[in-house]
Amino acid sequence: MPMNQQIILKSRPQGKATVDNFEMREVAVPVIKAGQVLVRHQFLSLDPYMRGRMNEGKSYAAAQPLDSVMIGGTVGVVEASAHDNFQPGDTVVSMGGWQTYSVVDANEPGAIRKVSTSHVPASAYLGPVGMPGVTGWMGLTQICKPKAGETLVVSAASGAVGSVVGQLGKSMGCRVVGIAGGAEKCLYVTQDLGFDACIDYKAQADSKSLYGALKAATPDGVDAYFENVGGVIMDTVLARTNPFARIAVCGLIAGYDGAPLPMNNVTLILVNRLTIQGFIVSERMDLWPEALKTLGEQVAKGKLVYRETITEGLANAPEAFLGLLKGHNFGKQLVRISA
Amino acid sequence: MPMNQQIILKSRPQGKATVDNFEMREVAVPVIKAGQVLVRHQFLSLDPYMRGRMNEGKSYAAAQPLDSVMIGGTVGVVEASAHDNFQPGDTVVSMGGWQTYSVVDANEPGAIRKVSTSHVPASAYLGPVGMPGVTGWMGLTQICKPKAGETLVVSAASGAVGSVVGQLGKSMGCRVVGIAGGAEKCLYVTQDLGFDACIDYKAQADSKSLYGALKAATPDGVDAYFENVGGVIMDTVLARTNPFARIAVCGLIAGYDGAPLPMNNVTLILVNRLTIQGFIVSERMDLWPEALKTLGEQVAKGKLVYRETITEGLANAPEAFLGLLKGHNFGKQLVRISA
Repeated sequence: MPMNQQIILKSRPQGKATVDNFEMREVAVPVIKAGQVLVRHQFLSLDPYMRGRMNEGKSYAAAQPLDSVMIGGTVGVVEASAHDNFQPGDTVVSMGGWQTYSVVDANEPGAIRKVSTSHVPASAYLGPVGMPGVTGWMGLTQICKPKAGETLVVSAASGAVGSVVGQLGKSMGCRVVGIAGGAEKCLYVTQDLGFDACIDYKAQADSKSLYGALKAATPDGVDAYFENVGGVIMDTVLARTNPFARIAVCGLIAGYDGAPLPMNNVTLILVNRLTIQGFIVSERMDLWPEALKTLGEQVAKGKLVYRETITEGLANAPEAFLGLLKGHNFGKQLVRISA
Repeated sequence: MPMNQQIILKSRPQGKATVDNFEMREVAVPVIKAGQVLVRHQFLSLDPYMRGRMNEGKSYAAAQPLDSVMIGGTVGVVEASAHDNFQPGDTVVSMGGWQTYSVVDANEPGAIRKVSTSHVPASAYLGPVGMPGVTGWMGLTQICKPKAGETLVVSAASGAVGSVVGQLGKSMGCRVVGIAGGAEKCLYVTQDLGFDACIDYKAQADSKSLYGALKAATPDGVDAYFENVGGVIMDTVLARTNPFARIAVCGLIAGYDGAPLPMNNVTLILVNRLTIQGFIVSERMDLWPEALKTLGEQVAKGKLVYRETITEGLANAPEAFLGLLKGHNFGKQLVRISA
């Protein structure tokens, strides 16, 4: 049996994360015990939340311990099973981490899930039919709650989460406006994802110009905002809010890698009686089955489209992750670990 | 009949408001028509929201027009009535503005309300049994929603709104911690209002010291926060929030008179899955009767205590208002306009 390659957190970032914070190592593939399943990973999901785990101190989850394998969602194939529900060859989703193989205790609730690849590709279970898709569905349906005819704005619109939010928003009858970085991403957001408009924030000279572009795209103001970014983009969207707008705070990636960014338009919380709510998808596991059912059906029917950036080989995961933090990915960032 | 003295908005503030933004004038007292009531004001309420109205541009209410009488809540006595429901001598609450007399169209819904002074003093209808009291009740019961045993923090704790919030919070079984400016106010908050603790923010050398004091007073963290102030105080309380804390944004007085202040701890919205909601008491008129009933009963029974700063004479209203913005008042700021 081959060795298990792993990427561990070697050191905590001082300011921006670098490749030196990671280290590759090889260990023996463990032998499974009763109730366990050995999974060979095909795809690893890279997600912005991982940056928070690299820091010491308070986040919504415990910090990633030093010298331990970086955590992460994976889809893979069962190689060996000592649990009746899983057979070699099954495709499974689990939190396998940044490594080639993992051993999962299949009796632990929610630890491993068998999925069908007959209508949905395996990688989609890390994207629109996985954590990012459920995240978009949850923030939209539980916090943004847009009504038909309202205007919904989505930042990081071409990303794994934002692309789902916008497409679901369109199906709910909203005017949907995306914000993304680059002309190519914006073209994808309007042409492929069907958003009504998309603002390329990188094409704006300053925050005033960004506001002007957003104003033109949201003539009736903003009723709901799905926030992935923070900083200047958040302040600009707040400045376009209508009374009683709802803001789901899913991510603040602009401030993850270095100093957190302030919110300057605080007064608008009062003036426009805004509701701003942070959420984390893993704390409402009760909603996942409904979300996954909806998302799986939409992907299988081709009604929910998505895009992936696939980096080849586990060794390239650190660089791909750093690129994700800078917005270099286009759609869901994955790492192909094995065929 | 004497003349009607009025204070008008003469000019808009450039930065901080000054007495030069106001002007006193005298006009004839109008003659009432059918359906109208002439009210002689006893007390004028001064409230932080008035500062927002002095600015041009978007606020939650239309800007106060230049050369018009400053708006404001009043309690007074009916001098003449051409409406069956009101008789001379009745005590009434209305939005009479910064002037000695006003004419109210009594057929306009919500424009004028007759009150009893047998168990509740007239001035209390501008405080705990009026707009400030209902504001506190509403933010607490509709947004903060604290459970018994939870920790509730209230800024501007000795003020007209904050004092009500904290006393109601105590009656709901919460640990209640106030923040106020000055040792005298803090003593009042703990001894007279019955809060569990009060932090004198003026006694803190810096934000770190403020955080230390708040930490000591909130050993179990903060579950609900009633925000009247903003700026450093808001950021400090956010830093003590527990997961799923609720923050009712009622006022941001620290940023009213000059440049608005940023929120620096934005990341905590996500990390602690906070809900931050702005509200304005006038948009839920359906809740006022229930609130006023509760508050009136509590004041009549002496269970809800309050304090007033009464400035004598309409001419001194501008100076009293500027003092209010700096926290010079102690409890509800009123102006006695006539006996």
